Amino acid sequence: MKNFELRLEDLGNHSSGNIETLFAQANGFMGIRASEPIATAQATPGVFVNGFYETHEIIYGENAYGYAKHHETMIKLFDLRRIDIEIDGEELEVLKHQERCLDMQTGLLHEKFVYETASGKQIMLTLESFASHADRQVYAQHWTISALNFSGQAKITKKARLIQPQADKVFDPRVREASTKMRQEGNCYQTLNSQLKIYVKFDAFEGTVDLREGQDVTLTQLYQISKTNHFEPHSYEALKKQQVEIFAAFWESSDIEINGDDVLQKGIRVNLFHLFNSAGRDGKTNFGAKGLTGEGYEGHYFWDTEMYLLPFFIHTQPELAKQLLAYRLHILPAAQARAAELDFKGALYPWRTISGQETSAYFPAGTGQVHINADIAHAFKLYHEVTGDDAFMETAKSVIYETANFWLSYGFFSNRGFEIHEVTGPDEYTALVNNNYYTNKMAQQNLKYAAELARKFGDEDENSQLWDEAAQKMYFVPVNEAGITPQDESFLTKEVWNFEDTPSEKYPLLLHYHPMKIYKHQVLKQADTLLAHMIFANETKSEQMGRDFDYYEPLTTHDSSLSRAVYGVVASHLGRHDLAYEFFKDAATMDLTDLQGNASHGIHAANMGGSWLGLIYGFAGLHRTSEGFSVKNNLPQAIKGMRFKIKFKGQTKIFEIGEIAHV
Amino acid sequence: MKNFELRLEDLGNHSSGNIETLFAQANGFMGIRASEPIATAQATPGVFVNGFYETHEIIYGENAYGYAKHHETMIKLFDLRRIDIEIDGEELEVLKHQERCLDMQTGLLHEKFVYETASGKQIMLTLESFASHADRQVYAQHWTISALNFSGQAKITKKARLIQPQADKVFDPRVREASTKMRQEGNCYQTLNSQLKIYVKFDAFEGTVDLREGQDVTLTQLYQISKTNHFEPHSYEALKKQQVEIFAAFWESSDIEINGDDVLQKGIRVNLFHLFNSAGRDGKTNFGAKGLTGEGYEGHYFWDTEMYLLPFFIHTQPELAKQLLAYRLHILPAAQARAAELDFKGALYPWRTISGQETSAYFPAGTGQVHINADIAHAFKLYHEVTGDDAFMETAKSVIYETANFWLSYGFFSNRGFEIHEVTGPDEYTALVNNNYYTNKMAQQNLKYAAELARKFGDEDENSQLWDEAAQKMYFVPVNEAGITPQDESFLTKEVWNFEDTPSEKYPLLLHYHPMKIYKHQVLKQADTLLAHMIFANETKSEQMGRDFDYYEPLTTHDSSLSRAVYGVVASHLGRHDLAYEFFKDAATMDLTDLQGNASHGIHAANMGGSWLGLIYGFAGLHRTSEGFSVKNNLPQAIKGMRFKIKFKGQTKIFEIGEIAHV
Repeated sequence: MKNFELRLEDLGNHSSGNIETLFAQANGFMGIRASEPIATAQATPGVFVNGFYETHEIIYGENAYGYAKHHETMIKLFDLRRIDIEIDGEELEVLKHQERCLDMQTGLLHEKFVYETASGKQIMLTLESFASHADRQVYAQHWTISALNFSGQAKITKKARLIQPQADKVFDPRVREASTKMRQEGNCYQTLNSQLKIYVKFDAFEGTVDLREGQDVTLTQLYQISKTNHFEPHSYEALKKQQVEIFAAFWESSDIEINGDDVLQKGIRVNLFHLFNSAGRDGKTNFGAKGLTGEGYEGHYFWDTEMYLLPFFIHTQPELAKQLLAYRLHILPAAQARAAELDFKGALYPWRTISGQETSAYFPAGTGQVHINADIAHAFKLYHEVTGDDAFMETAKSVIYETANFWLSYGFFSNRGFEIHEVTGPDEYTALVNNNYYTNKMAQQNLKYAAELARKFGDEDENSQLWDEAAQKMYFVPVNEAGITPQDESFLTKEVWNFEDTPSEKYPLLLHYHPMKIYKHQVLKQADTLLAHMIFANETKSEQMGRDFDYYEPLTTHDSSLSRAVYGVVASHLGRHDLAYEFFKDAATMDLTDLQGNASHGIHAANMGGSWLGLIYGFAGLHRTSEGFSVKNNLPQAIKGMRFKIKFKGQTKIFEIGEIAHV
Repeated sequence: MKNFELRLEDLGNHSSGNIETLFAQANGFMGIRASEPIATAQATPGVFVNGFYETHEIIYGENAYGYAKHHETMIKLFDLRRIDIEIDGEELEVLKHQERCLDMQTGLLHEKFVYETASGKQIMLTLESFASHADRQVYAQHWTISALNFSGQAKITKKARLIQPQADKVFDPRVREASTKMRQEGNCYQTLNSQLKIYVKFDAFEGTVDLREGQDVTLTQLYQISKTNHFEPHSYEALKKQQVEIFAAFWESSDIEINGDDVLQKGIRVNLFHLFNSAGRDGKTNFGAKGLTGEGYEGHYFWDTEMYLLPFFIHTQPELAKQLLAYRLHILPAAQARAAELDFKGALYPWRTISGQETSAYFPAGTGQVHINADIAHAFKLYHEVTGDDAFMETAKSVIYETANFWLSYGFFSNRGFEIHEVTGPDEYTALVNNNYYTNKMAQQNLKYAAELARKFGDEDENSQLWDEAAQKMYFVPVNEAGITPQDESFLTKEVWNFEDTPSEKYPLLLHYHPMKIYKHQVLKQADTLLAHMIFANETKSEQMGRDFDYYEPLTTHDSSLSRAVYGVVASHLGRHDLAYEFFKDAATMDLTDLQGNASHGIHAANMGGSWLGLIYGFAGLHRTSEGFSVKNNLPQAIKGMRFKIKFKGQTKIFEIGEIAHV
């Protein structure tokens, strides 16, 4: 079906890096970039395994107590797509033609490449491939090799190659090289520092075949990667059949049908497809900022998962959501140790991590974003409310208790209430401030929820009373004389950024201005107070939300990909439907159009999740009621109707808004 | 004279590093640590040349726009004190006895070492040495070698050795190795990265001599180091004579005689001696935080010079003061380029530097301390007022104009006045705050002084009117309900540090707590608001000063060596003479007693200057009047009297306070 197919023509930018990202395949365990089968200098092929990383000591210009100690870098392991073909002694030199079609409905990637030798012999490579969701250890390829204008001998080599660090590259610890040296013993590869092991079982082919015009040669290969050296036997066809069934089930529960806008329809499907593909499912891995599609942000897990991705999973794939949440329980001991190291109680989750260790090397925009604690608690609460899964929450309640305990020791009771100082909110263009509105709102929810769970599970004690008290007394800086909610205690006293004299090439600001220049001004990288308004829409007055939107939006550069979707949702709440549509459109097609200019580093996963928020929280105005959910029609003019499903306590609810094209 | 002699017995800590620092000799161009002549594993010998450094790229865990790019490290060049002696084939093994006497009156160091071989042969090495102040390129040694209990043959090698980087040391860019590889060609040594050159002319001796009990062998050597390969011929005796004369003149103008406390008398003389020795005098070098006595702080120049050292030099050695100030004019172009890089107008001086480039690798407690601009302007102003040297100020006025221009662009006019945001004040336990009292006071003075100079030198224009306006409208956060001057806009709203539960081994806090923990509390590393009160004592009401002293002092850890002297001066102002004495005593003998535990890294120069402030601004209450100066008797009980001289506009004024012992 047309709107389930992503083709090269759909991409705004045809650089090889961009194509590799958008057509990448993944299954939560591994991800494979869609690199060209004949190697080129620009190609950045690679297989990523979720949670498989190398560590390097973080070098600081000036070190201090409690700084994060190690980088963790998800590594590019193998080039599994490369094929080497020599025709009558000649190499394939020029790519004459390529077609790519990612069939999102089936989870299969269909590709065609026509290459030519120096003497003009043309060969067509047709590849069907998939990262299996039936057995996540398998990446499967089926090749068809056809001589187009000759008959002759083809020497074919098709084997896995470990991607080697570039020897001529000067070592620069600021840029983490995602390829790395590994120790190999038999079928086992081990990283040198982190000492992690993977095992492989790869089909390989090396031989010479006769090619005749009009007669195809085919080659089927399975590449299996395992953390335990256990491999199941498989047939390509059986796995392919299961793949089709799994994706059918995925779309059955998670698709959003949009009537009246084919571009957006495809955009949102690309987003949901990648979200489904890159999510860790074993309770020990999570969802990197770029999923498993690229090396950006080193494969680290951030708050993105909880605030931008989990709403989608919780409402449509609750079992998968549970696995993502289980990861936070899995790393709770590391978060407790981190809090203790910083001389605070409870648990402080790392701003960015794979293993659970803090790896952010600039604390003012890393560890300082302690709101991640409350973000995590928020996602657990949402999961709990939507699924009613008390059993899981009883297992996981210590995550909520320990994050609440952190707030008790990080904040303090003053004569103004319970204050939280020295935090960085979501907006990274302001750092280390006091009583950030978003942080205090979220911490308040964290504390309240902890007290609720304590009552529910019979864990009440003096400490749980303090959670209640801190939540009740949470201090919020009063609105200013113009009625604006202050982002933090000092924000509204700052000088407003001079947008007029900032040329467009100076964005994103962080690449062109020193933090001191940025921090001292009223300028936002992304939604901050407005993100709180989106979360707490039910308890925030529309007039307040409107005033704050009108004040903060013009101050926001949207230099972060996490910004537009949030402003879009709030615009929907405010009934500004066409404005919401503008924000949403940018978010929904961000990587297709390469809006941020760096899709080659991997998908902007949080923004993809944000586009779900835009549609469901925004256009459909989904909100919880005493009986479950209710929706509103906030559709912009450009969209005629929408249809989607939500799972609530085991039941599937179908929602339709506007005019639906029943086919 | 006893109180002009520093002996081993005067030191609280006899570690070799400590001895090397306290007995180090220097002349502003070079400094030589007083290492043992027979090398030991603990020894950290070295010659430093002022302004001679190597550069290394600064590695950041996470880099950002405008960060400082290179470390600059003053390097340990040669071991010029080592002597190798073999007696009848045996090495000297055990140091049986040593005496050291630094004759501060003459600038000569007298040392005696008795070494013993394995078979018990004892030899006495007597060394007289000095870093010449007559020709600053010369370090002179006169050796007497005596056999104590044998007669035999001594093989003697006495030559300069370049100190090599330790080969077995893992490279760790966080710890800058002060020894470095250099390119050598003939008598020229060149650093590999910074490409700086020095030339040497060293006397060497290598030979065998007959030693007989009771008969001495002597050896006289001159070591000359030059940046230009120009060397003057010299005789040891002539240079020695000049040395004695120069030091006589120094003490004549700069001594402070204290009646009634020999320990303090010696303490202050050690301090003034080292200040005189380590100050750069060529207008292109300055005064490192550790002078030329050790590798601490990499030999960097900080605000220490302007705020802690220059008052001494300005009032007693104005020509030397002028050279230190000329350095700031010399690096003005670098400061202008730095301001432009950060997108501000005027000039922003580097927080730490040798060459003029910013080298602080942690901007919140580095570049963020923009008060250095005003500190520099303050020192120029003080020099100008005390010397009346209009000619120099006309040459140097652009330093004042350009620092004032920086404030105009870094600060902004709001409805509250002229505000300065995102600064770190002197207290590094609070970072990146708004309207720091010290910074705003000092910037106000900087702006006022710029406007005054513009009027004086006929440079008035629209811009100079803005200096006046910004100074007039400078915003100060109002005192709180308890009448306390807020250190900055948020300080008094923070939680007070829990001193009660902080064990003594957790100091200094910066080594045991994460910056987020420290920054979020009311806790000071060093005087901040009180430093402003010291500077602006004339315009600050005593009651205000007293309240602020009583509030801030208990919050101050004095983890910085720049703190005690300031509290001491303010205590004197407040008439709390015995309390002032306690602070002063600690400051005056800090390195003799190794109070901070790291005297081995070099002298605490700023604190040495601070002890001058304690005596002159504090106990003598020196303050300017319309006719020049006036003093008060703020002497503590422990001190009977004081006598010192001040130069004012070319004239020497003698001040006597209390009871003077005329000898």
